[in-house]
Amino acid sequence: MGWGDLGVFGEPSKETPNLDQMASEGMLFLDFYTANPLCSPSRAALLTGRLPVRNGFYTTNAHARNAYTPQDIVGGIPDSELLLPELLKKAGYISKIIGKWHLGHRPQFHPLKHGFDEWFGSPNCHFGPFDNRALPNIPLYRDWEMIGRYYEDFKIDLKTGEANLTQIYLQEALDFISKQQASQQPFFLYWAIDATHAPVYASKQFLGSSQRGLYGDAVREIDDSIGKILKHLQKLGISENTFVFFTSDNGAALISAPKQGGSNGRFLCGKQTTFEGGMREPAIAWWPGHIPAGGVSHQLGNVMDLFTTSLSLAGLQPPSDRQIDGIDLLPAVLQGKLIDRPIFYYRGNEMMAVRVGLYKAHYWTWSNSWEEYSKGVDFCPGQNVSGVTTHTQEEHTTLPLLFHLGRDPGEKYPLSFASSEYQRAMEQISVIVEQHKVTMVPGEPQLNVCDKAVMNWSPPGCEKLGKCLKPPKSDPKKCFWPH
Amino acid sequence: MGWGDLGVFGEPSKETPNLDQMASEGMLFLDFYTANPLCSPSRAALLTGRLPVRNGFYTTNAHARNAYTPQDIVGGIPDSELLLPELLKKAGYISKIIGKWHLGHRPQFHPLKHGFDEWFGSPNCHFGPFDNRALPNIPLYRDWEMIGRYYEDFKIDLKTGEANLTQIYLQEALDFISKQQASQQPFFLYWAIDATHAPVYASKQFLGSSQRGLYGDAVREIDDSIGKILKHLQKLGISENTFVFFTSDNGAALISAPKQGGSNGRFLCGKQTTFEGGMREPAIAWWPGHIPAGGVSHQLGNVMDLFTTSLSLAGLQPPSDRQIDGIDLLPAVLQGKLIDRPIFYYRGNEMMAVRVGLYKAHYWTWSNSWEEYSKGVDFCPGQNVSGVTTHTQEEHTTLPLLFHLGRDPGEKYPLSFASSEYQRAMEQISVIVEQHKVTMVPGEPQLNVCDKAVMNWSPPGCEKLGKCLKPPKSDPKKCFWPH
Repeated sequence: MGWGDLGVFGEPSKETPNLDQMASEGMLFLDFYTANPLCSPSRAALLTGRLPVRNGFYTTNAHARNAYTPQDIVGGIPDSELLLPELLKKAGYISKIIGKWHLGHRPQFHPLKHGFDEWFGSPNCHFGPFDNRALPNIPLYRDWEMIGRYYEDFKIDLKTGEANLTQIYLQEALDFISKQQASQQPFFLYWAIDATHAPVYASKQFLGSSQRGLYGDAVREIDDSIGKILKHLQKLGISENTFVFFTSDNGAALISAPKQGGSNGRFLCGKQTTFEGGMREPAIAWWPGHIPAGGVSHQLGNVMDLFTTSLSLAGLQPPSDRQIDGIDLLPAVLQGKLIDRPIFYYRGNEMMAVRVGLYKAHYWTWSNSWEEYSKGVDFCPGQNVSGVTTHTQEEHTTLPLLFHLGRDPGEKYPLSFASSEYQRAMEQISVIVEQHKVTMVPGEPQLNVCDKAVMNWSPPGCEKLGKCLKPPKSDPKKCFWPH
Repeated sequence: MGWGDLGVFGEPSKETPNLDQMASEGMLFLDFYTANPLCSPSRAALLTGRLPVRNGFYTTNAHARNAYTPQDIVGGIPDSELLLPELLKKAGYISKIIGKWHLGHRPQFHPLKHGFDEWFGSPNCHFGPFDNRALPNIPLYRDWEMIGRYYEDFKIDLKTGEANLTQIYLQEALDFISKQQASQQPFFLYWAIDATHAPVYASKQFLGSSQRGLYGDAVREIDDSIGKILKHLQKLGISENTFVFFTSDNGAALISAPKQGGSNGRFLCGKQTTFEGGMREPAIAWWPGHIPAGGVSHQLGNVMDLFTTSLSLAGLQPPSDRQIDGIDLLPAVLQGKLIDRPIFYYRGNEMMAVRVGLYKAHYWTWSNSWEEYSKGVDFCPGQNVSGVTTHTQEEHTTLPLLFHLGRDPGEKYPLSFASSEYQRAMEQISVIVEQHKVTMVPGEPQLNVCDKAVMNWSPPGCEKLGKCLKPPKSDPKKCFWPH
C-alpha cells in the first residue's frame, strides 16, 4: 500500500473511513518511512529495529539491487538477530504473527523459532498458482505445521480477484485478542495482511465496492477489518491498554497499477525505488486516552522505530550489543516532540539517499535499467524527472542531488549546486553521512544464494495432508536481482 | 491554488488547519471543477453560471487557446450577461467583491455596473511592477474610483515576497460582514483573494511560516484569514444564516512551481490544461446547522453551480431566457444526493474533454506547443504520459481517449478501444456530447482583440491622485494566445 492510498492522505475516492477515523482518534504521521522499498528487507527491519544492510536482508550479487525472499532463497533471518517478539517475552508478552512472514521459509527461519508463539499465515507471498512440479504452491501454516497451500486449499480466483483470506486473517486476529484479554496476558500482534499485493484479492462482499476497482476493493476490506479490530479492542475494554500502529512495508507498486497497484499520492515513483513514492508510508498511531486525538506529526519516523517503541512500551531496553537504527517514538507520539534523526534510503548494499530535516540528498539515482524499462517494466509510470529517475545507476557521491521536500515533495527540482542553501544543507548532511558510513558494519548478506531445492516442497506437516512434493537436486546459484 | 494544496486533500505538510476544520464542520467536495483552466473565464463562469464559450470569455483567434483579460484586452463581460449580484438584488442582497475582478477593466465592465454594490480590489492580476510609461501599474479600486496602484501605493516586495494585501482584504471582509449584520441586510461577499497567484506574496507575519516556502506562506495566510472570517460569522451569530463556499479558479500553476506554484496532488498537469490537474479544485461547503458536519460528496460539481445554488438559497430562479450550465447543489449539500450531470472541459473554443460519472473522455489532447515547451514552458513538469500530454493538438473526436478516474485519477492508462468497457461508456458519453454540441450557441468572443490604448492609463479617480497617464494611440490587434 502507498502513502496516497488512504482518504486522510488525499486519495480522491476517500474510501477508508475506518483508517481515517483511526487517524482522527490518534496521530497521523506525515513523514514516516520504511527501511527499504521492498517487502522482505522492510519486514526484517521492522522486527529487528535494524537496517537490512545490518540484519543481512540484502544482496551483494550486484550493486544496489533490491532483493527479497522468493521460494528458492537459501537465506533468511539469522539466528544472531534478536527479533521484537523474542525480546518482548522478557516482559511476559505472547506474540502472534498473522499473514506474511517473508523472513525466510526454511526450518531455521520459522517465526516460532524467532520469538513468535503463534503463527497463522504464509512464509512467502501468495504468488501462483504454480504447477506443484516445477514450482510448489506456497503453504499456509498454523504454528509449526502447514495446513494447506494457496490456490489448492486457500482459494484465490485470479479471474475475479475473489479470496476470503483477509476475512480469515481478521477472524484470527479477533480470536487471538479475545484469548489474550481473557487470560489477562499482554500481547504483541503482528497483523501482516497482504491483500493489496499483486495478485490483489478481496472477499466477495467487497468485490466491486470501490470506485478504484479491485485494488480499491482490497483496500476497503483492509480498512473495514481494521475498524473491526479497533472496535473489538474497545468492546473488550482494552483499547486504553493497547498501542496500535498502522503502516505499510513499501510504497505502492506502480508497475501493477492501475488494476493491481495503488497510489503514492504526489510522490515520485513507487515500490523498488528510493524516491519518496517507494519509501514514504501511510502511518497512524492509535492509543485512546494516551495519544491526543487528531494529532499530526512531522517526526521523521521509520518502521524500525516500531521495534524500539514497542520495547519502550513494554518497559524494556533495546539490545546494547549491536547497532539499533530504530528510535523510541513515544516522546513524539505522547508529547508531540520532534526528535532529530536522519532517514537512510538503501537499495541493497548501497545508501542511495538520506533525509535530514526537510532536505533529501541523493547519492545515487536509479529507477531501473534501460533493458528492463524497454521491456515495459516501469517503476515511475507517467513520471520522468530528467537526471533523477535515471535508467542507469548515476553516482552523485561527490555532489549529491539535493531536494527540499517541503517546497518540492515530488523531487522534481534539484537545488542549484552553487546556491548557499545547497552549501549550508550539504555541510550538515555530509557529516551525518560520513558518520553513518564510518560506523556501518554490514551483516552477512542473506539474499545472495538461490536454490530450487529449498522451495516449499515438503513443509512440516505435509505428510499428514498428503501434500509433500519431491524436491529437485540441490543446485545453489547466485540469485539474479535485476533491479 | 490546486486540489492538492490543502491538508485535507493530502498536502504532505498539512498546513491548512482552518480549511481542514471548515471541511470537518462542513462538506468536502472531491469531484469539484472549474469551468476553465484559466482565471478570467473561470470567474466569468462563476458569476454567470454559464460556460465561457457561452458568456464570451474565450477566443477564436486560434484553435483551443486559453485566453484571459490582460491589461490590453478590449473585451470584458458583456452587458447581456446577467451576473449573480444583479440577480440577488431582487431578493434584497447587498453584494461586495473584494480582490481580483478580472472580467474586464474598461468602464463598461466595472463590477458596480454588473450588480456589485461595493468593490475593493483590482481589475487585473497583480503583475508588475511596470514602468508606468510602456505599461501602467495595475490600479486598486474602492468602489467607482481607483485609490492607488500596485507596487506604487500597494507594495509587493518581489525580492522577499512581502505584501500585506491579504490582511487588507481580510479586514475589508470582516468590516463588510459586520456592517451587513448590523443593518440586518442579506449579503453576498465574493472574496477573491490572489496571494497564491505569481508573483506570490504573504504578510510579514507569515513569511517563513511554512515548510513549503513562499507559496506555502501565502496558503497559510489565506487559511488563517478564512478561519478568521468563519469565526467572525460565528461571533456575530450569523453562521447558521450564512452559506460559505471555498474553491479555486484553476489548478495550481505548475510552471511557477516550486517557489511560486502549488500542488494538484496526484492529478495530471496543471493550470492551462484540461487534465485533472488543471481543472479539479479544492472545494468545501460550510453552513453550520444545515450541512452535516464532516460530510464528503462525490457530486460532480462546478464553479458555475455556485451561481444557481446561491440563487436557490435566496429563493430565486435562474434566468429562463438563456442556457445556464450551473446546477443547484443544495440536494447534494443538504441531503447528500448525487445528481447526474456531465462536466465539460473547454480550452478556448474547443470542448477538449467530458466527464460522465467516473469516465473522462478526451476529444482533444494538448499541453502546449513544442515551440513553447522547448523554451522551458512546461505545464506538466516531471510528468509525461505518452499520447496524452501531447505537444501538438491531437484530435481524438472519432475515437476519444477514455480514462476511468476512480482506478486512474492520474489519467495515465487510457482504456483499450476494443474493450467492452470502452464501448459501453462511450455509447453513453457520445449521446451527451452530441446533445451538448447540437444545442451549443457560442457567445460573441470577448477575448480576441487587444489594444495598448485600453490599458489602465487613466482609471476613474486618477485625477484626484495625480496618477493619470497618457494612453498611446489606439492600435487594436488580434491578441496572441500561445496556448
